[in-house]
Formats: sequence, C-alpha cells, structure tokens
Amino acid sequence: INKLEMELEAIEKGGYEHFMLKEINEQPKSIADCMRGRLDAKNGRLVLGGLRDYMNKFQNADRIIITACGTSWHAGLVAEYLFEEFARIPVEVEYASEFRYRNPVISEKDFVIAISQSGETADTLAAIELAKSKGATIFGVCNVVGSSIARATHAGCYTHAGPEIGVASTKAFTAQISVLTMMALMLGYQRGTLTESKYVQLLNELEGIPAKVERALTMNDNVEKIAAIYKDSRNFLYLGRGYNFPVALEGALKLKEISYIHAEGYPAAEMKHGPIALIDEEMPVVFIATKDTSYEKVVSNIQEVKARKGKIIAVVTEGDTVVRGMADHVLEVPDTAEAFVPLLSVIPLQQLSYHIAVMRGCNVDQPRNLAKSVTVE
Amino acid sequence: INKLEMELEAIEKGGYEHFMLKEINEQPKSIADCMRGRLDAKNGRLVLGGLRDYMNKFQNADRIIITACGTSWHAGLVAEYLFEEFARIPVEVEYASEFRYRNPVISEKDFVIAISQSGETADTLAAIELAKSKGATIFGVCNVVGSSIARATHAGCYTHAGPEIGVASTKAFTAQISVLTMMALMLGYQRGTLTESKYVQLLNELEGIPAKVERALTMNDNVEKIAAIYKDSRNFLYLGRGYNFPVALEGALKLKEISYIHAEGYPAAEMKHGPIALIDEEMPVVFIATKDTSYEKVVSNIQEVKARKGKIIAVVTEGDTVVRGMADHVLEVPDTAEAFVPLLSVIPLQQLSYHIAVMRGCNVDQPRNLAKSVTVE
Repeated sequence: INKLEMELEAIEKGGYEHFMLKEINEQPKSIADCMRGRLDAKNGRLVLGGLRDYMNKFQNADRIIITACGTSWHAGLVAEYLFEEFARIPVEVEYASEFRYRNPVISEKDFVIAISQSGETADTLAAIELAKSKGATIFGVCNVVGSSIARATHAGCYTHAGPEIGVASTKAFTAQISVLTMMALMLGYQRGTLTESKYVQLLNELEGIPAKVERALTMNDNVEKIAAIYKDSRNFLYLGRGYNFPVALEGALKLKEISYIHAEGYPAAEMKHGPIALIDEEMPVVFIATKDTSYEKVVSNIQEVKARKGKIIAVVTEGDTVVRGMADHVLEVPDTAEAFVPLLSVIPLQQLSYHIAVMRGCNVDQPRNLAKSVTVE
Repeated sequence: INKLEMELEAIEKGGYEHFMLKEINEQPKSIADCMRGRLDAKNGRLVLGGLRDYMNKFQNADRIIITACGTSWHAGLVAEYLFEEFARIPVEVEYASEFRYRNPVISEKDFVIAISQSGETADTLAAIELAKSKGATIFGVCNVVGSSIARATHAGCYTHAGPEIGVASTKAFTAQISVLTMMALMLGYQRGTLTESKYVQLLNELEGIPAKVERALTMNDNVEKIAAIYKDSRNFLYLGRGYNFPVALEGALKLKEISYIHAEGYPAAEMKHGPIALIDEEMPVVFIATKDTSYEKVVSNIQEVKARKGKIIAVVTEGDTVVRGMADHVLEVPDTAEAFVPLLSVIPLQQLSYHIAVMRGCNVDQPRNLAKSVTVE
C-alpha cells in the first residue's frame, strides 16, 4: 500500500520534485483557468456570475472592507490598490482575527469581501458572521468549491486554481488576485471611474498575463543560482512600494514559511524609519523595483542600502539597466500595466523561497508547525 | 570647548547614561505634561484648544484617516482602535509614503490626522499637502512647536513631551497616544457614543496613568536580567492583539533600531498563518498578554509557542498567575482600562530594547543609519 501511495503521489506531482514547484509552474494555466469564461477581451466583456445579483450593492457601497489571514490578506492588500485606483471607493483591509474582536464600525452600506483559499479559515469565517450580523453584504473569494466560507457568504467567486497541496500558497494567491482584478475592473467600468477605452485596454493586457507569467517563470535558473549564494543567510528584508508593497510582504512570508529564515517585508519608504538600522554586509535585501510610479524612489532606496553594504537582489522590468548597474543580482519580469505587476513580480519570489528551502533540506510541502488551512482560531 | 560640551551633555542627561534612558524614565512626567490643562477629571472635563474650531467637522466626519511614518504610525494604529471603540467612526491608518503615491480616495467629509514627533517628516508633510488639495480637514499631532507640519495643518494639538534627543522615540510615542486618547474620548462623548458615566470613569482612569507608568518603570531590574539572557539572540518575535498589536510592532521596532537585532511584530493570531514556522528553541517571543478581551486567545498562542520550545517573555497584568505558569519570564504592568493599556505595556519593551542595545555595545542614542527626523522622502 505504501508503495502504491508513493507512486500515486509521484503521479500527482506530475514529474516535479514537490507540489509547491508544480504549483508555481502551473500558474500560467491556473490564472487562465480563473479567467476562462469570465474575461472576453476581444468583445470588451467581463462576466462574474457571482456578482450579478449584487452588482448594485457593490457599486453603491460606501466602503469595501476586505478581511482575510496570511497570504489571502496580502491578496487583499493588492485589492485595496486595485479598487481605489479603478473604482474610487475607499477600502479597508483587515486581519480577520483583529477585525472580529474589536467591534468594528460596519453598516449595511458596506461591502465585505472575505478571501480564503480553503474557505475554512476559522478567523475569517467568524469575521463573516460578525459583518453579517451588522447587515453588510458579504462576498467570498475562495478556491475550494462548497467550502464553509463559500456557503456562509451572500455571493462569491471561485478562484478555480485547482487543488493546492503545498502548504505555502502560490497559485491560489495569484488566482485570488486575478479574481479581485476582474472585480475591480468591472466595478470601475460600471461606476464610470474607468473609461471604456482604458477598460478595454486593461482587459486585453489582463488576457496576456498568463503568457507573461510563463516568461517570468524562465528566471528559474537564475533564481536557483541566487538561492545557492544566500541559502545560509539568517535574515532577509523584502521591500516594495505601491502595488509591490504587498508582494514584498508575500515574498517574505513564503521564505519564512518554508525555509524558516526570518524574512520581513516593509513598504520601501518606511526603511528609513527603522529597518535600515539592520542593514550591513550580512543582510540580503530583496527589492521589487519594476518600472512604475514609484520606481525613482525605490531606486534611491536601493542606493541607500548599497551605501550600507547590504546585498541587493532586485526584481526589475525586462530591459532595466539602471537597477542592473546597482544591484548584486537582478531578476526580470515582463512589462505590464502597473496594476497587474503583482501577478508577475511575485513569481521569482516564490521560486526564491522554494530553492532556498530545498537547499536547506526543509520539508517544502509540509513545513514544520504549519497547517494548510487554519481551522482553529 | 570639547570638555564643556561634554559636561553640558552630561547635565542635560540628568544623571542618566543615555538620553533614551532619561526619556523612558521621564514618561510619567511627559504624559502628565501632555494632559495638563486639558484633562480635568474631577469636573468631568476635557479641553483641547486646537480642536475647538474643528469639533463640528470632526464629529461629522465620514471617516478619519491617520497618516504617519515609523513610531508615529504605530501611535496611529492605537488611535484606530480608540476612535472606532469610543466614537464609532471608521478609521483608516496609512503609511504616509504609500498614501501619497496611490491617489487615495479622499473627500471634504474626511478628517485627516497627521502624526509626527518632529513635525518635519517629509513623507507625512507631502501626504498632508495631498489631502489638503482634496479638501479634507487636516489635524496635526506634533511634538515640536512651530514645526512645518504644525504650520501646514488646519489645526492641531502639541504633545508637549519636551525635547526628545534619543533617535529611537519613546516619550514622544506615549505623548502622541495620550493626545489621541483625549481626542477619542472627547469625540465619543460629543457624539453620544460614550455615555456620561463611562466618560467620567475613563477620564479618572486616564488621570491616574502617569502614576501607573511610574509603577511600570519599576520592572527595570527584571528587564535588565532578561536582557542579559537574550542579548545575543539573532531574532525576536513580538506578538499582541487588539490594542496591544501596535505595541508589539513598536516593541519590535525599538529593538531593531538600537540593537540591530531582527525583531518583527505581528498580530498574535496571524502567527499560525506563517511566522510560527520560525519558532524553535532559539527564538525568543515577546507576548503582550495583559488581561483584556483577547487574553484567552493570547494564552493559547503562548501555549503553541511553548509546545515548539520557543522562549517566552510575557508582559502581563499585575497579579497574573496563568501566564506566569507558562512563560519563561514575566514583566508586570498595572491594571487599567483596556484602551489605555498601550501606555503601560510599551514601557517594559522600551526598557528591554535599551538594555539589550547597551549590553551589545551599540550607540543607543544615535543608532547607525538612522536620523532623528526623516526630512527626505
């Protein structure tokens, strides 16, 4: 029986050494699956069945509250930027565990989005019940069909990323962001805060994301070389701004989860208010420095770290020469609309955590102390 | 000249070895100074001159937006809990650097509070200009009289903590929280979300805080012993919930800033979603586990860390026996209203970072790479 199970597992891994690696590499497909039947760029259409009956509520919400834990909370932070940019509705992102215990101000005019891969996260489920009791509309973004959260919410959208076995979430994260991106674009278009031409342009760009994720994945060999250099580091900092700030948090969380290295994410500009004191020649700093509105500022942060002899690994836009001249290592991702960058910039960070963990001999798919879904408070 | 300057410095330090230690110990006085002439508990009165002309705007705000950097941002997080609990107005706390670059949704119905010790923080100043251009009312909470932020805002309140010389902020932080607490109580009372009897009760409790801070400071010898044990640790985690979540962030930031140890703060319940993977016998975990609404949950987090052999330093309420039985070390603070706990629970964390930094031979008052006020973006 043991032998059969092992063979079954090997088949499920589809030739990959670990589920996590398989799931990282599946992302062009899982993102495409998430958008299939929903996004039709050629005809300028987006359809999210789950939103149909609640579009009116959504459009007229005073505030969008997003509640989640862990990696899903990071997807929520990306969504804060998406909703505010495209739909101009104020967004508040809350740790589910904090939200439920602090008697938050919620009303029937609030639209609450709960995000959870498993749909079983206990704190998120409790936050939903609380918001429901105050009359808010609750929308779920889950991966597991028929899960508790999918059932407890008024409506929702599945992420359709397929089963995620690795405890550290990868493809579920990018699928969550894909759903939230589609929601933000629909909302912006309906509210008129996004023009028709801009909307169609963004839909076309979004449709091309799976192919760009495929290209981002080709950095794998470079990532592996970098991993070999830094695998014994005791600490890491991850810095980004704007859309890439949540990506910095997510990159750090991945490394923590599976390699047990103490990695921390920060908005790059906050570095000067404390974390920069940590920088010396032993501290690798991962910058997400793609070409966007805060590029110049991030470049100057890179210079500050360089001046203090920190080691710099930078995720940059293809063809970047400025950061290449400063950083110790660069990892390129294709250019895209600023709002879609997280779907690409997170890829090399997933790979980096994976390779470092493998080289340290860690159990990548089942890291110590962690459960795939946290069903206790 | 050198000799004279050194003598002058010694006089200014008032017998303390470092400005930071002096400033930590000044807190009973600086908090009392902050409340002097404003809080009159006996007659059930609170007067904040700076708010007088803007009380109407404040009371009728759709939303309170708090913007700040570093330690001031942590004071803002405490204020989020205060304003939502007492005045039932939704609050959004934003890193000034992120706020200004992401074209945030702001209107004339928003009340923006900018917090900065120096009143010169460049990112915060820029965030103020942005919010102003959108018609919002801007209220400043600064320590330095006549500073740029004090001048750029519509109105404000000084914290009156006196000059803070140590780069790592201590007494300015507790004075900021004191001002924000008074604002929240006034607002709650005016809006009728806080009953007269509760209001008076809280005013009386607040008046007693300086004496309780004095008592919290007496943990110093215990803190020093704990510092001697953990001074060579490479990493620390700080965990708290509710009002103590920002305190966890602040405790970690203090340690980072002056001892260069990689310390990270987290809401305790998020531990299960990643950081718990870091826990082993080499990881000291500082819990803020005072007797409040999330006490039971924090106790169960402590047990989880214990089960994974993490070393536990716990800040507890005087007389606590449950956590004492589990933790490796406990530091007691006096009991108070839940909303006022940060003013006490942060004290032993300031002392811990101080003693560890001194034992590591660090330049406590002028840590490497850091400036007292960050006047560049």
